This record gives sequence, C-alpha cells and structure tokens, in this order.
Amino acid sequence: MEHTKGGFTMPGEAGYEKLTLKLAERWGADVVRDSDGTKLSDEILDAGYGVYSTICVIREHNAFGREHPECLQQTFLSTEPELAGEGPLTIRLMAGFFDQQFKVNDSDASLRHWQVWDRTAGIQVPWEGWSYENGNVILPAPVPYHAYTVSFLAYRLWEEINMYNHVTNAWQSEHLMPIDPRLPVAQEYLYNYLDRWCREHPATTVVRFTSMFYNFVWIWGSQERCRTLFTDWGSYDFTVSEKALEDFEKEYGYALTAEDFINRGDLQVTHMPPTPHKRDYMEFTQRFVASFGRKLVDLVHSCGKKAYVFYDDSWVGVEPYGPHFTEFGFDGIIKCVFSGYEARLCAGVPADTHELRLHPYLFPVGLGGAPTFMEGGDPTRDAQQYWVNVRRALLRAKIDRIGLGGYIHLLEGFPDFVDTIAEVADEFRAIKALHESGAPAVLPLRVAVVHAWGALRPWTLSGHFHETYMHDLIHIDEALSGLPVEVKFISFQDAASGALEGTDVLINAGRAGTAWSGGEVWNDPALVSAVTKWVAEGGVFLGVGEPSAAPGGWGTFKLRHVLGIDLDTGARVCHGRYTFDVETVPGLLPEGAGVKGLDHLYLTGPDTRVLAAENGLPTITAHPLGKGCGVYLSSFQVNAENTRMLLNLMLWASGRGLGQPWLTDSPQAECAWFPSAGKFVVINDSAQARTVTVTTDSGVRTVALEPYGIAIENN
Amino acid sequence: MEHTKGGFTMPGEAGYEKLTLKLAERWGADVVRDSDGTKLSDEILDAGYGVYSTICVIREHNAFGREHPECLQQTFLSTEPELAGEGPLTIRLMAGFFDQQFKVNDSDASLRHWQVWDRTAGIQVPWEGWSYENGNVILPAPVPYHAYTVSFLAYRLWEEINMYNHVTNAWQSEHLMPIDPRLPVAQEYLYNYLDRWCREHPATTVVRFTSMFYNFVWIWGSQERCRTLFTDWGSYDFTVSEKALEDFEKEYGYALTAEDFINRGDLQVTHMPPTPHKRDYMEFTQRFVASFGRKLVDLVHSCGKKAYVFYDDSWVGVEPYGPHFTEFGFDGIIKCVFSGYEARLCAGVPADTHELRLHPYLFPVGLGGAPTFMEGGDPTRDAQQYWVNVRRALLRAKIDRIGLGGYIHLLEGFPDFVDTIAEVADEFRAIKALHESGAPAVLPLRVAVVHAWGALRPWTLSGHFHETYMHDLIHIDEALSGLPVEVKFISFQDAASGALEGTDVLINAGRAGTAWSGGEVWNDPALVSAVTKWVAEGGVFLGVGEPSAAPGGWGTFKLRHVLGIDLDTGARVCHGRYTFDVETVPGLLPEGAGVKGLDHLYLTGPDTRVLAAENGLPTITAHPLGKGCGVYLSSFQVNAENTRMLLNLMLWASGRGLGQPWLTDSPQAECAWFPSAGKFVVINDSAQARTVTVTTDSGVRTVALEPYGIAIENN
Repeated sequence: MEHTKGGFTMPGEAGYEKLTLKLAERWGADVVRDSDGTKLSDEILDAGYGVYSTICVIREHNAFGREHPECLQQTFLSTEPELAGEGPLTIRLMAGFFDQQFKVNDSDASLRHWQVWDRTAGIQVPWEGWSYENGNVILPAPVPYHAYTVSFLAYRLWEEINMYNHVTNAWQSEHLMPIDPRLPVAQEYLYNYLDRWCREHPATTVVRFTSMFYNFVWIWGSQERCRTLFTDWGSYDFTVSEKALEDFEKEYGYALTAEDFINRGDLQVTHMPPTPHKRDYMEFTQRFVASFGRKLVDLVHSCGKKAYVFYDDSWVGVEPYGPHFTEFGFDGIIKCVFSGYEARLCAGVPADTHELRLHPYLFPVGLGGAPTFMEGGDPTRDAQQYWVNVRRALLRAKIDRIGLGGYIHLLEGFPDFVDTIAEVADEFRAIKALHESGAPAVLPLRVAVVHAWGALRPWTLSGHFHETYMHDLIHIDEALSGLPVEVKFISFQDAASGALEGTDVLINAGRAGTAWSGGEVWNDPALVSAVTKWVAEGGVFLGVGEPSAAPGGWGTFKLRHVLGIDLDTGARVCHGRYTFDVETVPGLLPEGAGVKGLDHLYLTGPDTRVLAAENGLPTITAHPLGKGCGVYLSSFQVNAENTRMLLNLMLWASGRGLGQPWLTDSPQAECAWFPSAGKFVVINDSAQARTVTVTTDSGVRTVALEPYGIAIENN
Repeated sequence: MEHTKGGFTMPGEAGYEKLTLKLAERWGADVVRDSDGTKLSDEILDAGYGVYSTICVIREHNAFGREHPECLQQTFLSTEPELAGEGPLTIRLMAGFFDQQFKVNDSDASLRHWQVWDRTAGIQVPWEGWSYENGNVILPAPVPYHAYTVSFLAYRLWEEINMYNHVTNAWQSEHLMPIDPRLPVAQEYLYNYLDRWCREHPATTVVRFTSMFYNFVWIWGSQERCRTLFTDWGSYDFTVSEKALEDFEKEYGYALTAEDFINRGDLQVTHMPPTPHKRDYMEFTQRFVASFGRKLVDLVHSCGKKAYVFYDDSWVGVEPYGPHFTEFGFDGIIKCVFSGYEARLCAGVPADTHELRLHPYLFPVGLGGAPTFMEGGDPTRDAQQYWVNVRRALLRAKIDRIGLGGYIHLLEGFPDFVDTIAEVADEFRAIKALHESGAPAVLPLRVAVVHAWGALRPWTLSGHFHETYMHDLIHIDEALSGLPVEVKFISFQDAASGALEGTDVLINAGRAGTAWSGGEVWNDPALVSAVTKWVAEGGVFLGVGEPSAAPGGWGTFKLRHVLGIDLDTGARVCHGRYTFDVETVPGLLPEGAGVKGLDHLYLTGPDTRVLAAENGLPTITAHPLGKGCGVYLSSFQVNAENTRMLLNLMLWASGRGLGQPWLTDSPQAECAWFPSAGKFVVINDSAQARTVTVTTDSGVRTVALEPYGIAIENN
C-alpha cells in the first residue's frame, strides 16, 4: 500500500517528544492529541500539527465540588430487599455500595424523593411508616417476612471514568468529582472555567469534549466478588438531581418518582422497552444537555477553535441521532471502535467530521483487565483483529479520520504494532479516497431493523460488542455493517405507520420482552397487521431468537403466521409437533454457517420449510405468505460464514437470487464497487492468504489477497 | 426367591387355554382377565380362578349411537388462525382435524356455543359478523390481515382408545363410538346394558371398569406429519356437550364459553395453572361422573360382583384423590405402571384393593410404535426395567396385586419373559408380605411437594413418565417414590394456610408459569411470606428449575431471598454477577450426580453457596435463611446418583446429617427396614451385581446382590 498522509490523530506525550514526532511521521499523522493521563509539551505543540485537547468539562473541579457539595452529580440507588422478621427493621442504605463512589444525599429536599417499598406486597410504605437516621432507614412495624427496599438519592463522589482509569492503572492522584451543570452556580462556574481553559490553550485547534456532562450508568458495589453492580451505556440515571426532578415536574406537569428509575431493582435498562416516563425524561435531559452544551460550543468557536465530541463515556443526553444533536453545533464526532457497527454508528451522525479512535488503547491493560502493552499482551494481533472488524464497515460508509489514544511511550517495546498501525493508516486513507470519488454501489436490497429505539439508536444496542454479545441483534448489526445493502433502523411505531414502504427485508431479533424483540408492543394489532400486509405483498420478515414475542394472545410469536414457527412457553407442551425433513437449497447456506438452537420451537403447520436443524429442533426456516416470506433463525452468531448466510437468506427470500454482482466466491473475502472511481476493493477478513473471484459487470475477476490483505482494482 | 402364589392377575385368551392355565400356574396367578381384543373361554372361566372382565361402558354401542347421534360424546375444537386478506374469509372447520374422529355438530343448540375470534385484535367477532354454511364459517367483512379462528362443538365418532388400538394393531373391526351418559336417554340405555351384561357374565367376579365415561383428551389431526394435535391425560375437554354446558350454567349461575376450553389455542392443559372456571367445571363433572358411576357400581354389587376401576384411559372425572371418589363405592383400583411414582399414585387411593398392571402390555408394539413382542423387541429387558422402576416404590407403600394385560399367545416365542414375570411375581409377593407385617420405617424427614393441583393430583403430572419427561417435577416425583421419607402433595393455597407445619422440606419444581412452578400465585404476598417464615424458622425450601417464578415484582423467583439465586429474564442483563468458587461438601453429591444447567441464573448475594456449576453458571446452590435454608437445582434428571443426591441434599440442608441408618453405601442399591417383621430389604436397581453395606441399628451389614437382585435379611 502506498504511504500517504493525513486523516490521522496520534497521541502525544510530554517527555517522549522524539518518539511522538517520529511516529507522527511514520503514521502520516496530521493531528496530535493529549489523553486522559498525558500532556503535550511545547516541543510537540510547536511541531506544526493540528492539536486536539481533551477536556471532560465536569471533572477536575474538586475545590469547587468541596465548596458546593450540592453540585455533585447524583443518582437514585436502591438497597437490595431486606427481610423483616418480627419487630423493627433497620436498613443500612450504603450496605451494598462502593463508598468511594457514593454518599447518601440526606438533605430535606432529597428525602422528599425517597421511597420505601414493601417488595413482597408490591406496595410503597407510607411516609409515617419509616424514618431516617444516620445512614439507616428504620421501619418500626414492618409486616413480618416481607422484604423491604429503600430508594434514595446518592451523591457521586468519584467521576466514573476517572475511577476506572485510576483503579485500572493504579493511579495515586486525587479522585475527581463530577459536577452537575444542572445547577446555575455550577453552570456559571463551568462556563468560566472553559473560557479560561480556551485562553490557556492557544495551540489547541480542536477542543475534544469527553463527552458532555453525564456518564453512562456505572454503579459499583461494596463486594470485591461483584464490583460492578450495574453498567448501562445508554441509561440516564446519572443525570438525576432534586433540581432535575423539579424542573421536569414543572415542564411535564407530572412528577417522576424514585421508582421510575429503580423499576423494581431492574433499573431502566436500555435493553428493555422504555416506559413513556423514561422517554419523557430522556427528551427533557437531551434538551438541557444540548442547551448548555451549545453555550460551551459557542464559546469554543468564539476562541477560534473547533469543537468535537467523543461519542462514549459521558455521552448521555447527547444522543447523536436525537432531535437536538445538531443544536450543539459540533464540528466533529469521535467514536472509539472495536467493531464494524461502531464505525457505521459514527458515520451516520450529522456532523462534518467523523473520526474513529481505534483500539487497542495504549494502556498496559485492555478489556476486562487483560494485558495489552505489557508482558502477556499481543497488541498487534488485537489491532489487526479490530481493524479487520472495522474495515469492512469502512467499505460501506465514509469515515474522515482515524486515531489512537493513550501513552505513546508504551510502544517502545512493540515495533510490530507501530508497523501495523502504519499499514492501517494507509489502508484507511486509500478507502477514504475511494469514498471521496463517490458512494459505493449497493445491492437492490433495502433492509430495516426494527426495535424499540428505532432511528434514535441505530446500529448499537448499548455499549461495545463484548458488552452486548449475548444479544442476537448486535451480531446481526455487526454482520450488516459490512454488507453491500441499504440499512435503516426503525421503531415499532415507524413500522406500523408507513416505514415499511420501500423496505425489502425487516429484521426483528432478540429475546422476548426486550427492546430488541419489542415485548408488549406486539400485542398492537395495527403493528401486526401492518407487517403482515407488507409481507403478503412481497416483504421478507426475518426473525431471530424470539421475534414478535409477547405474552397473551394466540401463541408466542405474534407473527407466527408469517414465520410458520413459534415457541412454546409451557402451555403447548401437550400439543403435537410437525415432523420435518431438512431441505437443502443449493448455495444458500455457506459451508460452516449455522446458528445455535433454541429449545421449545415448533412448526405451526406443514408449509414451513426447515433449512437447518439441531437436535431435532429447527434452527433456520422459511415460510411463504402471499408474495412474501418469513425467515426464522433461532439465534445469530456473527462470523464470515454466517454473515454471507444472512445476505444469502435475504437475497433468496426476497426473490432476488444469489447470483448478484460484486460478491466474492468466499465468505472470508468481501468486495465493494465504487462506480465513480471505476474501482473495486476486495478485502480478506481472514488470517489466511486466499485467491478469490469477483463477478464484476464485465466478467469474473480473480484477486489474490494477503492475510488480512486488501486489493484495490480498476474495473 | 421362594415360589409363592396369589396377588397376580393374568390375561387369558380363548384359543390358548392350555397356555393360559400353564402360565397361571407358573406365575402363581389367582385371577384371570380378558383384555381389549381378547375373550375368555369356558375352559378358562371354569378353571377355578377369579375372573376380571373388562368393560368400557361407553363404547360398543354403535347401533344406539347411530340411532341417537346427539348422544355421541363431543369436544370443543378451534381452527388454526386463518389470515384475512382483502375481502371475505371462508374458514373450513374440519381442515386441520382427523375426519374419522370428529364431525362438526352444527345443530342450532350447538351453534349457540360457537365463537369466532379475531385473534390479532384479541376480540370476539359478534354474531352478525359471520355465518355458517356446510362445514364453513364465512366472514363477509373481516379486518384485512387479521387472523381469525372458529371455536365449534364437534361430535367424536371414534372412541379414542379403540382408535389407538385399532390403528396400532391394524384392526379391521368397526370403529366404536363413544356414548355420552350426560343425556338421560343414554344413561338409561347404558344402565340397562350393564344390567344385562352382568347377567350375561356369571363367571365374572370383578367388573373392571375401563374406566368410567370420559377419555383423556386426544385430538388427532388431518396431517400424517402431525397426527396428534393434542394429548393431555388430565384435561376435561372430552366431557363437554350442550347439555353439560346448560346444566353447568343452571348450577353455577354463569355460562362457560368455548374460550374457557379453547383458551387461545392452548386449551386447558394440565401443566398450566387451572382457571377458576376450569376448577368449577372439573368439580361439576366429577359430581356427575360419581353420581352415575355410583349407580353402575351399585348395580354390579347387586349382582354379587366386585367393581374395580382402571386408573387410566377414560378416567377423566373419576379423580381418585378427589372429594367424590369414595362416593363411587369401588372395591379396587388398577393402575398401569411404567414408573415408581405411578405405584405410589395407585397405593394412596382410598380403595380396598390396589393393583398394578405391569408393562410391557402383551402387544406386538409398545410405546411410540416400538417393537415389543415381535422382531426387534426385547420385552424381557423392558419388563425388568419397568419392574426395577416400580419395585423401589413398592418398598415404601403397599400394593395388593399386580398383573399383565394383552395377548398371551404372543409369549410363545419369549420364554425369558415368562421366567422374568415369575420372578417379578415372587418378589412382589415377598415385599407385600413384609408390608402386611407392618409399615416400613422412614427417616425423620417430611417432604411436601407444592403445585397447583396439590393433594387432588399427587405423584403424577399428567400421564406416564415418557409423556412428561420434559418436566423436572416428574423426575423429582420418581426419585421420591422410592425414598424412605414421608411425602405429601399440597397446593399453594395449602402452603399459605398452615400445611407447612410438620413439614421439613418443601419442593417446588418446574418451568415458570406452569402448574408445577405455580405462576402468578407467587405474586400473593401471603404465600411468599408464609413460606419465608417457615424457612426462617427451620424449613428447607428446595427449588428446581424456575421455582416461585412470576412476572412483576422484584426479580423473577419470588423466593429469591430464600434461594439466594435468581433468573434474569432479560431486564438484568446489565447487572453485575457475583463470582463464586464451587464448594465441596464431603459426601453430599454422590459420584456421577449432577444436573443440567439453565441459562441466565445469577447469585443474589455473597451468602449463596455454590455446590455445583456448569459453564460458569451455578447448577446446585444452598443459601441460609434464619434457621432454615434454600436449596436450588437448575434442573433434575432422575437416576440412581441424583436420587441419592436429592436425599442427601434434603438431609444436609435440614441439618439431619448424611449418616442416617438403613441407607446403603451405593446409590444403586436401596434399603427398606420393616421393624414389625424384623427384616430389611435391599434391592439392586442396576444391571451389575454388587455387594453393599447397610448401616442397621445393630451395626453395619454387608449384602451381596445379583443384577437387579433383591435380598431380604433378618436384622
């Protein structure tokens, strides 16, 4: 690959000036950045590169935080259920929680929002039924052998990313507090702080916000055996405060209660369908974050700098696909990526510049504490794997920049890694150049994924792949991210009201009751009949796992008449089961493709075609309905073979045929055709060299590929 | 084993008189019976044996049935949902059903009970929205792309046991119709028929009713690929008729509807918690069956004969553990058995004589059409296996008689089988003799199994083991059937209102929402707190699978605070998980014991002890609560090792210790101590000879056992 330059952001590190500048040259960097834990020296700042400076606006203000403890960020917490015996019950609020992260907010204003629940009876204990004293709630006369919880507001003493990095890297520095800009005194302070900061950073060309104000939810516990009590990249718990609750009530005309957040101990997890209250609260918070965020961005702009936002960590309330995102006025968005779907997630945000921060992060340890840049780590392998995941998505959607983060000095022992990043940077720039000539071609296949979040939260579920791997949909999203098809994400409301028009395949994938499968929404006859009609008229409904599952009604899958298969939740154990033979459709399922089985599936009638089975239960089926078809997969695990299988199933079921142009003859190799450039790219997603053929519009071409290789060919 | 005589009922067969009498002698029979398909000749009847004559009162009346077609038995059926397009929808009622079994009852009286449902919207279509014509229901203006069903009454043309035997044995005889005694004209006819029958069978000493009037539900379909649409040994669908519905409404003041039976296509399956309407209807039917049944039994008695009832096939409405059973006045009950739990089920019925009909049945083919007394069959192995299953239960509860059924002539090619039955008969009589001396000892462990049916339906779920093997509870019941512990079955209402007193271990085992786990009943705080209090005061709650699971509330298992473990239904996927080490308690889990895992389990806190795990998920746990304990198993599969494990867990968790007397040192060998006789029995449940030790009250004894052997020792 030709050595090129630009579109690359590299971490600099004071004390390692020579290394920084040498690697900047090697990687073709045009921008240098600092990171959490590193600084840039004048020698680096003056070297002629653009300069990104990271800033997490709401931390590094411990003096202010100590002076204004009411301005610390908060959250609702609930104790675990505590069983009453005969006599009074004392519940220690902080018993289960990490006391370096949380502190009970027992102000009078806070106490008004607390709730004590008899969880056995499912009823709230009236105010006169309990009292608070010194960290404990006391119930003088609980019902014996009922279990009680207390929901309370807690201040957060330790900003969570600082807490994580501190613990991971054994930092000894002071714990940074998170400041809540919801209070005017904090807003004024933070605005002035940023103003001063901008003036003190004249060399900075881009202020990289990390991100805005509120971290994703990350609740730590008191027990080493269960340090993380709860993590959700998409939940809004960490935005709450007395002031937020007051403002919400004024604006919406009803009050949110602690239970709106605690939700019987489940919390409001992103993986479950949001309640109307949660939707309101998200909208309310987004408007606040955008409004104060806009002020900060304006300030940055007034200093002649650009403002980029990091699409991770404190991104809550930013919602880059939400209705208020463009109000911020950000010039760019930066997403840290392990996977292809994250590249698509970044690429689709309405902003001028889209940048990916590649992994691994230049830290001694990586995911789950596994070694990276230290004994036992293999950062080159990691970097290659992540790049191969991401690259196939880059064939389909344009990204403007890539970069790294962390401690550059760690690279001294890893020359292979330096070489790999140089190759990655060149490949990236080559692909970007193709996009700049014009968009790549797609097959005539328009895919919609339907889930509770719809277009507000396309591509992602909540967090990274390794945090959501247990959900079929993230596997589907990852497979789709690199396929040459149009993809959109729609909500169930969208599906019921016209969004299926112009759609060829509708995907619904997930466990029953979740935001991904949909839950109760499938008891809406308008939704069910809209999808049914669309299938009967030629659409393909592709269900994975427990699609359209809802309690009540006839059977479990509310689109069982489309899918021709259903799941017995226990009530149909006495029903007979259709026997079946597995049918082979030539070319449909690539060798090595296949999905894990699911218990309790049964065919609803004789017309369902079983394409694969495991232990006597169908795993892949197809069922005709009118001019359309239902396709079912009992689960989906992303890999090269299954990705091609998914594409094949969509092409076959929609009647388009498997012999489409611009596909390779190997699931491990993928192709993108850029008609304006007159070039096609072929990538090898595997560690084995391979020679593949591509059917172009002017005949079959043979392309030889190195392990993980890429070839850009003129057509 | 000493050759003894009596307590044995053997099938005779006209044409095989010599064989019949030779085998009667060989097996020590005191009774000869006929079977479905065989007759006894005078030579057999006059040989000095007691004579059982089988009679299925409601069949063999085809002339009457043709004359009174309104007296055929019926059932509610529902079509499968049929999708409307644009325009009218025609639904052919019999499309899915076996036309030799069913015929639409389209009388005016019947039509009043039909229902047409829009299953997509979940609403009934009003009368004016449909019409009936010649086997079809027509909806002139359905909602496009909604799915519709029709619930209708159908006559049953072919009595189901006759249908099964006919098809299985390729009989060519006329299909027998089932007559419904609900109508007075049929009652009068059947009474007179039995009267005549008794007079025509002077040699008969025992009239063996097969059974009363209504078969378990067995709905056959039109497709060879799914011949059985529904089978449930415990459901009441086949008792319904216009007259039954009328009488019910008069008596209960409200009308049952088709939907009370059809229940969104699930039907009222025994494995799910019964609705209040179903409970009423069962009680209503039981009273009718007992009242007309009593008249028939009185008639039999008036002829100087005894009346036994067969506890299978047409047993619906008889409910041998129900409040009306003793009203029949039966002298004995006969249960066909494959398993130990069925022996206990028989033994506990309030009747003078308890008889087991052993398997295999003397038919060419057995379960699921597998060969038995023909090429490829191994009836000796089958007989041994079933006997070993049953024998361990016979150590714990007295049974008075055993027997066989079928075609005796089939035995000519199977001399081993004849020998095996001779041994079985002798073993049976030896065990019976011990019981006659006085009851066997039990360990100080009182076990209650709680499920929706409670004492009405102890031991069984619904049908035989091979029909219910997918339910954990049948495995638990089978294990318990041969353990030296007190066992009772209670309902959830019982558990909430005092039945736990005097109970040491409470078992709740099953899939969420089922009759066995309990379903919604676990949202009753009275039940939850009653069990919790009982545990806190020293009880052991042993949960298997998804015990105490109910939707809503905090977590899934409503006794999670007792069990220390819970199941994530999807809402807690973002919650952290306690890590754990697997703890070894010496002697607790026998070598080879272990259960299948269940996904999505998590420990609720640090105090849960994990005793076994699979793929990183706990499979067996224990959790202290007050003076008691919760024990959890992710599933249960009955075998020798797991049976001993179950006993050990109960002893250990209740603080009784594993070193109890009258246990062997091998899970494959079991012991029963009969204090009045001064003897103990040791049985070998395995096909390997083994020498075991037994701790008696006077020291350790060593006993050598043949494969499947039995030893009766003086203490």
